[in-house]
Amino acid sequence: MNTTRSGPVRPSRRAVSPLRPASVARVEDGFWAERRRINAHISLAEGTARLEQAGNLANFRAAAALRTHSAAVASGTGFSGDFQFQDSDVYKWLEAACWQLADTPDEALAADVEAVVELIVAAQREDGYLHTYYQLGGGIPWTEPGWGHELYCAGHLIQAAVAHHRATGSDRLLDVARRLADHIDSVFGTGKQMDTVCGHPGVETALVELHRTTDEKRYLDLARYFLERRGHGTLSSGADRGHDRDPGPEYWQDHTPIRAADEVTGHAVRQLYLLAGAADLAAETGDTELRTALERLWRDMVTTKTYLTGAVGSRHDWEAFGDAHELPADRAYAETCAAIASVHFSWRMALLTGEARYSDLVERTLFNGFLAGAGLDGRTWLYVNPLHLRAHPHERPGDQTAHRTPWFRCACCPPNVMRLLAGLPHYMATTDDSGLRLHQYATGVFGGDDLTVRVVTEYPWDGTVTVTVEDAPTALPRTLSLRLPTWCADHTLTVNGAAVESGAESGWLRITREFAPGDTVRLDLAMPARLTLPPPRVDAVRGCAAIERGPLVYCLEQTDQPSRLDPDAVALAPDAPLTVRSRPELLGGVRTVSVSGSLLPADDASADWPYLPLASAASGEPRESVELTAVPYYTWANRESGAMRVWLPLAGRG
Amino acid sequence: MNTTRSGPVRPSRRAVSPLRPASVARVEDGFWAERRRINAHISLAEGTARLEQAGNLANFRAAAALRTHSAAVASGTGFSGDFQFQDSDVYKWLEAACWQLADTPDEALAADVEAVVELIVAAQREDGYLHTYYQLGGGIPWTEPGWGHELYCAGHLIQAAVAHHRATGSDRLLDVARRLADHIDSVFGTGKQMDTVCGHPGVETALVELHRTTDEKRYLDLARYFLERRGHGTLSSGADRGHDRDPGPEYWQDHTPIRAADEVTGHAVRQLYLLAGAADLAAETGDTELRTALERLWRDMVTTKTYLTGAVGSRHDWEAFGDAHELPADRAYAETCAAIASVHFSWRMALLTGEARYSDLVERTLFNGFLAGAGLDGRTWLYVNPLHLRAHPHERPGDQTAHRTPWFRCACCPPNVMRLLAGLPHYMATTDDSGLRLHQYATGVFGGDDLTVRVVTEYPWDGTVTVTVEDAPTALPRTLSLRLPTWCADHTLTVNGAAVESGAESGWLRITREFAPGDTVRLDLAMPARLTLPPPRVDAVRGCAAIERGPLVYCLEQTDQPSRLDPDAVALAPDAPLTVRSRPELLGGVRTVSVSGSLLPADDASADWPYLPLASAASGEPRESVELTAVPYYTWANRESGAMRVWLPLAGRG
Repeated sequence: MNTTRSGPVRPSRRAVSPLRPASVARVEDGFWAERRRINAHISLAEGTARLEQAGNLANFRAAAALRTHSAAVASGTGFSGDFQFQDSDVYKWLEAACWQLADTPDEALAADVEAVVELIVAAQREDGYLHTYYQLGGGIPWTEPGWGHELYCAGHLIQAAVAHHRATGSDRLLDVARRLADHIDSVFGTGKQMDTVCGHPGVETALVELHRTTDEKRYLDLARYFLERRGHGTLSSGADRGHDRDPGPEYWQDHTPIRAADEVTGHAVRQLYLLAGAADLAAETGDTELRTALERLWRDMVTTKTYLTGAVGSRHDWEAFGDAHELPADRAYAETCAAIASVHFSWRMALLTGEARYSDLVERTLFNGFLAGAGLDGRTWLYVNPLHLRAHPHERPGDQTAHRTPWFRCACCPPNVMRLLAGLPHYMATTDDSGLRLHQYATGVFGGDDLTVRVVTEYPWDGTVTVTVEDAPTALPRTLSLRLPTWCADHTLTVNGAAVESGAESGWLRITREFAPGDTVRLDLAMPARLTLPPPRVDAVRGCAAIERGPLVYCLEQTDQPSRLDPDAVALAPDAPLTVRSRPELLGGVRTVSVSGSLLPADDASADWPYLPLASAASGEPRESVELTAVPYYTWANRESGAMRVWLPLAGRG
Repeated sequence: MNTTRSGPVRPSRRAVSPLRPASVARVEDGFWAERRRINAHISLAEGTARLEQAGNLANFRAAAALRTHSAAVASGTGFSGDFQFQDSDVYKWLEAACWQLADTPDEALAADVEAVVELIVAAQREDGYLHTYYQLGGGIPWTEPGWGHELYCAGHLIQAAVAHHRATGSDRLLDVARRLADHIDSVFGTGKQMDTVCGHPGVETALVELHRTTDEKRYLDLARYFLERRGHGTLSSGADRGHDRDPGPEYWQDHTPIRAADEVTGHAVRQLYLLAGAADLAAETGDTELRTALERLWRDMVTTKTYLTGAVGSRHDWEAFGDAHELPADRAYAETCAAIASVHFSWRMALLTGEARYSDLVERTLFNGFLAGAGLDGRTWLYVNPLHLRAHPHERPGDQTAHRTPWFRCACCPPNVMRLLAGLPHYMATTDDSGLRLHQYATGVFGGDDLTVRVVTEYPWDGTVTVTVEDAPTALPRTLSLRLPTWCADHTLTVNGAAVESGAESGWLRITREFAPGDTVRLDLAMPARLTLPPPRVDAVRGCAAIERGPLVYCLEQTDQPSRLDPDAVALAPDAPLTVRSRPELLGGVRTVSVSGSLLPADDASADWPYLPLASAASGEPRESVELTAVPYYTWANRESGAMRVWLPLAGRG
């Protein structure tokens, strides 16, 4: 089923996007294949049990029972879970399962999918409304746009329905989605019952995808309405019950229209889902003003509000982006869902602009800020992804701890990870008028109508990528474009064994020729371990460096250090050599980086005051040396608990 | 009325404290006199109007009306304000006003005091219970120990009553306090209705002071009960209504008994009020195990969890201490009340141990972390006291912004500032068996039965302190001890013009002689501006230095820089000279510190990625130089809004 319609984000024929996701996109072996195997066989397979346990599925049964029994349910008694958006967990799992089935048939998973689809079908009201929280007595529908999450959940239902349709060809869930979208269209709009937006964006991308799937223009118009209506202060938390804390209009990006905004702000996931929707709209409409705003906002995010890991949303308080350069390593919020949202936004920008920088960020985010959220076991998760954990941390009770958890009270992240992993091959390659582009490197098959290639690579552990043409039916010259990652300082490129000039144009290495099956392009990306510095205005990690190799950010975990030395106790010499070691037995198989460091001065426990005059500061005398071992950041917190650091002080720079 | 009984914290005759607050303690001129004048004439004078406006006084009237009308008030309808602890704002103002009256008679203020006292008298229930939130239908008394704040408010009432008694000699409010304390004693204790503690400490210090004032041992026993009962997990937020977020037992220090604790943790104000109470108990009982625990906890706080300004409580989340070395400058919570609580704890430790280090921290906290919370106008306040504010900050709506506010929804800080300023002279000097000690330097008269001195100084602007003996009735040798501040690297001491050996013993400069009226001791503390480094494990400000002079921490405010240059854009040269200038017209009269800095590299807005390899980092080429002006941190945010920094990157150390 790997056809052009089998993955997420499919611009219509009318769209102005220069790039389209490759119609053939299969990951068959290597790093991501293993993560996707665990996702399918463990995370997705156990998903319905988790949703059952958390009460999400019970809500649909209860809503269905209410439809078939005329007796009203007592107010509020029927709903399981703490949040208005519990339904979205189900929809996200469903979307994930459908992308997985589109890739690899699985009878048990297909049966789970159809069972959940039937629960959803049964729960929908006659008028198309579907939101079990309000159906089960949580309040009056369409009265709490700020916190109600009705459109947010509708968006996830629609995305699940699109995935189900693309994976199975069935209209069963798509009909539910259309009836709900039609209902929304009857309620929302200028001069209608509701002339406002949802506190949590998400319906915008969904409506564009529904438009793409059904060719119904009303859905595109409705997406445009929500995108343009936002930023005019129509939301007010005061109108909702039970929320006495006012987050202010920036929280849900209702302070200024997207076109006028000059920075990403407020709740990170809300902001990025919104911008993903705007990118979809710009793709379908050719709106260049909107595209310019999106380019500006993406650059603001990358330049001033993104962690080395690609993670975003620095602040625990209101799960917000925070200020420019506010990037604390220890109290990083860096929600897993925000990394996913960043990938959604950047991928749409890659399609819209054809520029490599967006896929550069996708790569970094996937391998680090995103993947850290998923436990190696496929069964445990991180909600927040700090770049520093102390040996004796004081953590708030709840979801936002730095310890892997089987499920969350607010379980947005786990099924969101599942859907990105399940659809991941579709974020890796594009076709365009001139040929094929490889945005990400993984062993598999990628291509379109006139050029299909087989990729073999041990990426991210090794920088060699071998691309062999499998099919090239047209006799015309085609261009194969390979993204040259920003992290790579040295590379070579050969075609059928002959070296070729290989300067990148805007991040793309391009080979244009009349390709024939068996033609082989080999890209060698030099991948030494390296030290990386933060931008000069990031206070939180000034005077520090991070270890990286290829697309991977590394970290020191306490458990790997001699005598479980606390990583907070060491500094790096800027010129210390970095040694890469293959450790197939460790953490599912990784390469570690070793480097020698020196001990920082300990706290003077007898001091009456720890801040000292510059004049009396400790001399640069050599301190005890110690051999340190770094592991990829995405693997952290999968063993015994202990301290972790990405950024290490540089000796002599404190 | 400057007798031994006219200030806060008066150890009983049986107490083991080597030091007692000086019975004569008058600040007559200079820095603190001016702050206290504004406190009396503006803050305190306008206090009842604020409390009226916020509804706090109405609550007492409503509770009184309920007592005199048998008809029950409908549930919850009568209470003004958002918090269970609204009464405490009134009590704190009242305590402040009483300390002020004890110092300087004021008819209008005295009339306000008596009017408020009568409101309180009228509101107390027949059985002694007094807490308007529950009296006005907020719930059932003594059922919500976690969040109810009944004992917390009782503590503040008792403190106010003690102050009223000491200031006026009246028993009118003290009787209310005793009846309430007796009621509490009948409800709380082993085998009684409630065998638990209050979610917010504060009653412990109050009960010890009530014991000291009334000589009633039951109150000391009750304080001991609350102090010993804590740390055994008896609190559970789950038992209270309306609080679905569980802060965990550390939040209210119910995770481990004080004697066993090895670090300060949880809510900073709660932790420090608790430790202040424990220090009072140790003083009254001679409990050396408890004293040892308090010394350990104080040192943990100072060594790993205190800002340069003396502020504590780093974390917005749950207003908590945070981890060791978690001291972000930008997102510092550093609540004004926590600085006050730190002064309470440290002062009691100074009395208990006689050691100078505690008053060293008191000095630093008073001049910086505490005083920043009070606007220069006496009418505006800061709840949080960050050490860094960006030019375009994203602030959470509510009390916790970095802009001065006339009053807060949660108005704990303003009247708390008032009471510390009103009682401040009593934190400055002590007497002991051998003589008199000056802990803080201010122009005024300080002394006891056998030695009284007049101090003249322009502290903190100038380091000269002239101490002239006014009265020395005993013919025995007495010791005058002057604290040598830790910040001071160079000093001279003369007695009647002759230089004396002046090495400090444990922070005290001691002069022992048969003093006679007119004897003059002159201490000159060298006070050059200086650069200070953070401890090596504080990540947030690594590679930075702060400007200090004497006890004052300085900061750069945007408004003082050439062309309103953003302080985030500059670095300091470690060897740049610091120039002190007197600016009598600025900010009520300050000395500024000027230093030349250089511009940091700007963000590269065209960069696809801002983190760069160490190998390609910018060279050390000289950058544009700029003359910078620093003002005392306590004056910040009193002019136009803009960026502020305490810690500045050191050029060449990034």
